[in-house]
Amino acid sequence: MLSAALLPRLVAALLAARLLWALRRRALARPTAPPCEYVEPRSGARYPLHTARWCADHSDRDGKPIPLMLTDLPGIRRHQIHGSVRSLWRYAAAFPMPCARPISLGEGCTPLIALPLRGAVVHFKCEWYNPTSSFKDRGTTVMLSLLRQQGVTAVLEDSSGNGGASVACYAAAGGLHATIMAPQSTSAEKTVQMRAHGASVELIPGSRQATADAAVAAHGRDGGKLFYSSHNWHPFFLQGTKTLAYELWEDLGFTAPDNVIIPTGAGSNVLGCQIGFEELMRAGEISELPRLFCVQPLLCSPIASAIQRELGEDDGKNTPPVWNTPEKTMAEGTSIMQPVRLHECVRAVCKSRGSAVRVTEDEMSMATLELAQMGLYTEPTCAQAAAAFHELLATGKIHETQKTVVILTSTGIKATPKLASLLGVKL
Amino acid sequence: MLSAALLPRLVAALLAARLLWALRRRALARPTAPPCEYVEPRSGARYPLHTARWCADHSDRDGKPIPLMLTDLPGIRRHQIHGSVRSLWRYAAAFPMPCARPISLGEGCTPLIALPLRGAVVHFKCEWYNPTSSFKDRGTTVMLSLLRQQGVTAVLEDSSGNGGASVACYAAAGGLHATIMAPQSTSAEKTVQMRAHGASVELIPGSRQATADAAVAAHGRDGGKLFYSSHNWHPFFLQGTKTLAYELWEDLGFTAPDNVIIPTGAGSNVLGCQIGFEELMRAGEISELPRLFCVQPLLCSPIASAIQRELGEDDGKNTPPVWNTPEKTMAEGTSIMQPVRLHECVRAVCKSRGSAVRVTEDEMSMATLELAQMGLYTEPTCAQAAAAFHELLATGKIHETQKTVVILTSTGIKATPKLASLLGVKL
Repeated sequence: MLSAALLPRLVAALLAARLLWALRRRALARPTAPPCEYVEPRSGARYPLHTARWCADHSDRDGKPIPLMLTDLPGIRRHQIHGSVRSLWRYAAAFPMPCARPISLGEGCTPLIALPLRGAVVHFKCEWYNPTSSFKDRGTTVMLSLLRQQGVTAVLEDSSGNGGASVACYAAAGGLHATIMAPQSTSAEKTVQMRAHGASVELIPGSRQATADAAVAAHGRDGGKLFYSSHNWHPFFLQGTKTLAYELWEDLGFTAPDNVIIPTGAGSNVLGCQIGFEELMRAGEISELPRLFCVQPLLCSPIASAIQRELGEDDGKNTPPVWNTPEKTMAEGTSIMQPVRLHECVRAVCKSRGSAVRVTEDEMSMATLELAQMGLYTEPTCAQAAAAFHELLATGKIHETQKTVVILTSTGIKATPKLASLLGVKL
Repeated sequence: MLSAALLPRLVAALLAARLLWALRRRALARPTAPPCEYVEPRSGARYPLHTARWCADHSDRDGKPIPLMLTDLPGIRRHQIHGSVRSLWRYAAAFPMPCARPISLGEGCTPLIALPLRGAVVHFKCEWYNPTSSFKDRGTTVMLSLLRQQGVTAVLEDSSGNGGASVACYAAAGGLHATIMAPQSTSAEKTVQMRAHGASVELIPGSRQATADAAVAAHGRDGGKLFYSSHNWHPFFLQGTKTLAYELWEDLGFTAPDNVIIPTGAGSNVLGCQIGFEELMRAGEISELPRLFCVQPLLCSPIASAIQRELGEDDGKNTPPVWNTPEKTMAEGTSIMQPVRLHECVRAVCKSRGSAVRVTEDEMSMATLELAQMGLYTEPTCAQAAAAFHELLATGKIHETQKTVVILTSTGIKATPKLASLLGVKL
């Protein structure tokens, strides 16, 4: 017979054995993921993650550098979210390496607001509730935190807009020296924030492409210290934008939306959504990928046009052909003629069963004012996603009963002259 | 002997009785609070809350309207927070009346960021992570939601800055018509956002005071419909700004900070903090009020100067007397010469055992750039709170071991010309 004193010990031992067995079963069911590496998707070349790098060792046939991605990560489950952290670092377990000292300014955790729009309900993700008032901070906080951990002390970015402001801001917060290159034609207004954060601003003669080329050439300058940490190039930036997917999933009670409509420049939110939602699939948290819709201005739509070609679609907007005149669109933030990851973006959208919308300037103007009159004051650059919503609804590609998210990337405060011109107000 | 079928019922009945007893005990311990009313603090006149009103029935000796406050509310305890709501409406139980349909754009829930500053750690509350990129949205969401519930359909505000943008934005979101009055000298840039939201902008000849007088006179215009819903006048606005106190308490793990340093114009954050923290005392959630520190530019410091007089303090900055030249300070957002609730602000600060700091333009410039170089891009208007932190630390009024919060009310993006001038950049 058992003595009364032994009974609790026996129960405790049985419980401990049960727990060990459950842990062992989980370990067997989910084998340890291989270590994450940089990967050049076209050749499959891989590089270990412990040193800082922004491109492959080999060049393309024109002698130009080739961008990198990261190998697939396993994703995280809901219990791995650090619920007490009020920033996107709550998803730190999903990042490719642990980060002891993140450079964080409370970025992410932006609201998802459900509002009625033309008979449907749209979930607007308001990304300007962020340190530098644009979505770029998601990418920058992760990119600069991990680069600093890899030993980088001086960062180089080419951008005259939201990307430059964001990199300058986080470099200041993280004690890194920042150099921002911008075309000589950039207005002084646009460089004020970068200069205030202490960044060195270098104005480059010629086109936007000339600035990009100058930045690529300047990598390693200053005695090897200057590191090219471009928001368009570095794969760590996408590790930050992928938190958009994690956040939407958490916002929607740990479910995926049906559709995500994304204003697209270089495509970091398209790829961020793809990476994030695929990780959630891999982790077993969602059972289907949302459809991703890429939106670009008709006047500068390299990715959207390529997607339409890939899908054999014709939006009837292409006469006369005007898709390569970036200087003419008011959607400045998305007027990028040579996106570094064009092919990856096309693949991401097609794989998700999504499609592309090319928005005219008129549609964009109307959408900008329509949003403002609902209380959402945004740059025309992101209001184009609302214009696309109308078209997708009208053509039956999405339905009003579905859960549709529209990403609003930046505030109208950054585009006062454009808003004034839409309203006919003389400045 | 009990039958097996009866046992679960008996247990359930006992549990229910225990629950009823606990509820009854709680009801006895916390008597039902009297209904909340408008109150005119000087005469004690009260008015019921079921109709919209913005001032007392009687006038002051100069025939001018008198502002109202609300009678004390009991405050809420932590279990009354609606934890799943990602906006300040998570504290809706603390508001003076239930609101069936809040006009909400995900305002509040801003980050509190702890950063090292001159050997101490400061908790920066970043209030520009809000719909219109300033703290004003806290007050506006509550004011317009409750006014709409009271039957108001057209609102009138006088402001050319953050207040006007916020009221125009929320009026649009709530389907209210907004009229914003601003001095004729207001630059076109400043009215763009209001116009985009569909507000009627009326430019009034003369001084800022002339605009305020015109707005007061226009209340009831348009067939009685136009309601004066000024962020400086309406007591519901303070019901919104009081959520700053609730949020700081929640941010800090349900404790109060030792000190809160507040850039002060009309004082809605000073009074909001007083109301909120006093409610938390009343509800038994905190045991001591934080000390409130009011900061104003030396060139326009009616409240700070009055506090220093009340406390018999002399900051040695008053020779020659320059405290009444609002047009000369770069802290535009706080240059209000005749704050509607001056006496209430003085009382709030003194009661909290706080004090006042008057900041020179030089101190403000340096603090603005110091913050930017830490990654915090703010208007000089709110950077003055960081300048005050230095002075309070140097004079021993606060200690580096204490938990000090600095409120940063708005983004530097709204003050590009001022930042450019600080940096010596020609626009």
